[in-house]
Amino acid sequence: MNEKKVKKLSSLRIKKYRDKHRQFLIEGFRLTREALSAGTDLTALYCSESARDDLEKASAFRHVPVEIIQDKQLQKISDTVTPSGIIGVCAIPATDIESIPKNDNCIFLDSLNDPGNLGTIVRTAAWFGIHQIVLSENSADPYNPKAVRGGMGAHFYTTFYPNISAEWLQSCGKKILVADTGGDPIDAIENIPEPWILVMGSEASGVSENILSIDHQKMSIPKFGKGESLNVAVAAGIILSSLAKS
Amino acid sequence: MNEKKVKKLSSLRIKKYRDKHRQFLIEGFRLTREALSAGTDLTALYCSESARDDLEKASAFRHVPVEIIQDKQLQKISDTVTPSGIIGVCAIPATDIESIPKNDNCIFLDSLNDPGNLGTIVRTAAWFGIHQIVLSENSADPYNPKAVRGGMGAHFYTTFYPNISAEWLQSCGKKILVADTGGDPIDAIENIPEPWILVMGSEASGVSENILSIDHQKMSIPKFGKGESLNVAVAAGIILSSLAKS
Repeated sequence: MNEKKVKKLSSLRIKKYRDKHRQFLIEGFRLTREALSAGTDLTALYCSESARDDLEKASAFRHVPVEIIQDKQLQKISDTVTPSGIIGVCAIPATDIESIPKNDNCIFLDSLNDPGNLGTIVRTAAWFGIHQIVLSENSADPYNPKAVRGGMGAHFYTTFYPNISAEWLQSCGKKILVADTGGDPIDAIENIPEPWILVMGSEASGVSENILSIDHQKMSIPKFGKGESLNVAVAAGIILSSLAKS
Repeated sequence: MNEKKVKKLSSLRIKKYRDKHRQFLIEGFRLTREALSAGTDLTALYCSESARDDLEKASAFRHVPVEIIQDKQLQKISDTVTPSGIIGVCAIPATDIESIPKNDNCIFLDSLNDPGNLGTIVRTAAWFGIHQIVLSENSADPYNPKAVRGGMGAHFYTTFYPNISAEWLQSCGKKILVADTGGDPIDAIENIPEPWILVMGSEASGVSENILSIDHQKMSIPKFGKGESLNVAVAAGIILSSLAKS
């Protein structure tokens, strides 16, 4: 592989270049195998020379073109200190918020700026059957390498709608649920009408005022011990689990 | 501060030296304030020259001795790329598993090796009133800087029992609950006898065989969508929330 190509692929770690090329990177055998099995639009696959044996043993890659590149090239492209030997390039699908499925429950991430937490929320949402994630301005990019890693493959089953305003939320026709302290305790909540959209804010600043001014139902996780708050991905998991049961 | 002292404090980022000195570091105004309010055994507090104004504004530190050190010294001690200007040194309390409170519900972490997840579990456990955390050999160190950061102050309300074997678990006199796929779905579980001890394994390898051979009750989180597993801290949160309600 020539250095220009290495540089281009390595640039996909940065949002500006992901947006320009409409591509993102996935790393590791587990994740690339999952992408293949999900039928994800994989533009290319690269394996390092030293991982060639692992590649040959993995049946999932038998009929898939994989380019072997130098270890130091893969290291340059990779976001991790000890890359696992295989990297895939995936297309970022274009999405339109007007086409979001009318009857699907969704998640709205309001200025959620930690990519690791975002990735864990994508993974958790997929587990609970939520495959539509709407993101406000100022949210982290779901295709950030940390978010992709935290998603553990859930990205391949999720549609993302970035840069969506609170105005859209107001007119989206879904019941608006807001994770917040001081709302109805989740165990007292029954019969939430579907479809709903669950709004999660950032841990530091919570859900923004322009969303709280829209008609919504607050959901809180009762505290039995100590602490100011829960991790936002943990809170999302607890609320989604409770919604799945209601 | 002399360079030898900087070096000693900086060494506390490494487990070997935390064990030797029986001390760990906390970083940031939020965390050090929380430590003071919790009555934690703080050996020393260091503030960088450029954060002196923040320190003087913070009433929590008014009657507490804080040493001002050079920015570059604090940077050397810190575990983060952009340190927030204040670092505390806390004593690691000695604990004895024989003294674990007989009637308290507890968590057992079985080879949980990711410090970030460990910290988030400590934070989540404290929220649900669980303040006793038992760790197997091969688990991450709860005083690892990443674990402390993830704990968001919950460490100050938690007692840790490291290097505990499965044999102890067998004779601890608590109902053993194991988070695992293929167990009873959490929403079908009622009247769990207290005290219980919830075992969480690592995401990669689950709970070890020598624990599964002990009499226990499995708890699983039903899947409604896609994915092989949940993040271990998210799973702990969902199960603890369900136990709090049962």
